[in-house]
Amino acid sequence: MHTTINYRYERSASRLTVGAHLFGILGLVLLLVWLLHYRGGIDYDSDNSDRVFNVHPFLMFFGFIFFAGEAMMAYKTVMSRHKVQKYVHALLHLVALSSGIFGICATFRYHDMRDIDHMYSLHSWIGLTTFILYGLQWLFGAATFLFSRGMSESSRLRIVPWHMSMGRALLYLSICAALTGLMEKFTFLRISNVLGRRESHLINFTGLAILLFGIFVDLSVALARYIMC
Amino acid sequence: MHTTINYRYERSASRLTVGAHLFGILGLVLLLVWLLHYRGGIDYDSDNSDRVFNVHPFLMFFGFIFFAGEAMMAYKTVMSRHKVQKYVHALLHLVALSSGIFGICATFRYHDMRDIDHMYSLHSWIGLTTFILYGLQWLFGAATFLFSRGMSESSRLRIVPWHMSMGRALLYLSICAALTGLMEKFTFLRISNVLGRRESHLINFTGLAILLFGIFVDLSVALARYIMC
Repeated sequence: MHTTINYRYERSASRLTVGAHLFGILGLVLLLVWLLHYRGGIDYDSDNSDRVFNVHPFLMFFGFIFFAGEAMMAYKTVMSRHKVQKYVHALLHLVALSSGIFGICATFRYHDMRDIDHMYSLHSWIGLTTFILYGLQWLFGAATFLFSRGMSESSRLRIVPWHMSMGRALLYLSICAALTGLMEKFTFLRISNVLGRRESHLINFTGLAILLFGIFVDLSVALARYIMC
Repeated sequence: MHTTINYRYERSASRLTVGAHLFGILGLVLLLVWLLHYRGGIDYDSDNSDRVFNVHPFLMFFGFIFFAGEAMMAYKTVMSRHKVQKYVHALLHLVALSSGIFGICATFRYHDMRDIDHMYSLHSWIGLTTFILYGLQWLFGAATFLFSRGMSESSRLRIVPWHMSMGRALLYLSICAALTGLMEKFTFLRISNVLGRRESHLINFTGLAILLFGIFVDLSVALARYIMC
């Protein structure tokens, strides 16, 4: 009976992982269509402030959230020894972290070019808090699970649920940051009367794809946890 | 050893539950200060469209999200038999559902008064989808766990992780809906030049309190699950 349930969850969890990949790629495609076709392109070194700004949503979703999600699922997607999975997990998170730094710099550069205050909106508060906590979680995770020869196995095992719960909360925070950011840009464009029906729907579908990516990553990790129990 | 870990988690989970209550109440207080002091009050039958609108954030947070969170934590907070906890869980979700219906009606009434399109923004898409799924989850949950005499115990047990995972995803969705809603209103007010520094910070702190409520509810339920395993 127990084996049947576990098998069922395992199959479901791997379906959820496939779903997460698909929504992640869908989100990326929609985001690229939006930024390249409707918003003038992506260029960090441009004199056009809008193109500098566009680096921000691109890197924060594709660089940061997408890689962080893939890192969380590495224990299910990388068919190798646990140690290899662990290193892939840490490495993908490091890619996410590096992309996030450039993505955040892009928005500060945009604010400077347009003489806009930094850090005034709920989006910026959630976003920067998430990013700092994410950095700390990475450091704490590396210290505990990668470079901790002196720590006993049972101490590490005791930290696993906290590490997973914090990681899932951070994923949840980063999706909230992404959606509040999209909502802020959407409202600006709408009030400036430059937002057509088609672009408005495109932004909404992009937001939904990002949200579904987060949910599918979260569920696949949660069900993986149920299998482990 | 195992007992020690479980005890540790149990204590942590109940601390998280206390944290969730505190952030929920903090969110409510901040929201009320914002709506009553800065935004002119809350009144469904008013001729002033802003006061009609204010019913929406009030009922969607205090009525819908807060009660839904309390319902999710009922298995930890209600010190009684499992059956009583189950009925309290279902009843609190029903209160959340009913409040949500009035909260959504308020925003449709506001749109009609101001001649604004319905359902154009990402906030409205996420919000209504969440609410419909939440209603379905309630019906499915009631059919499975309250009125299912013909169903075997093992079938019900197999549905529990799905019911919990769906519930947690819905909590996550409803927090995203709340934050995108706050972000939308924030941006409108900012562009209309009616948003002072103090009110802007108040809105951000309200958003953070709602977000932390969601995270604490989610973590307390997740750790409860680890104890059950």
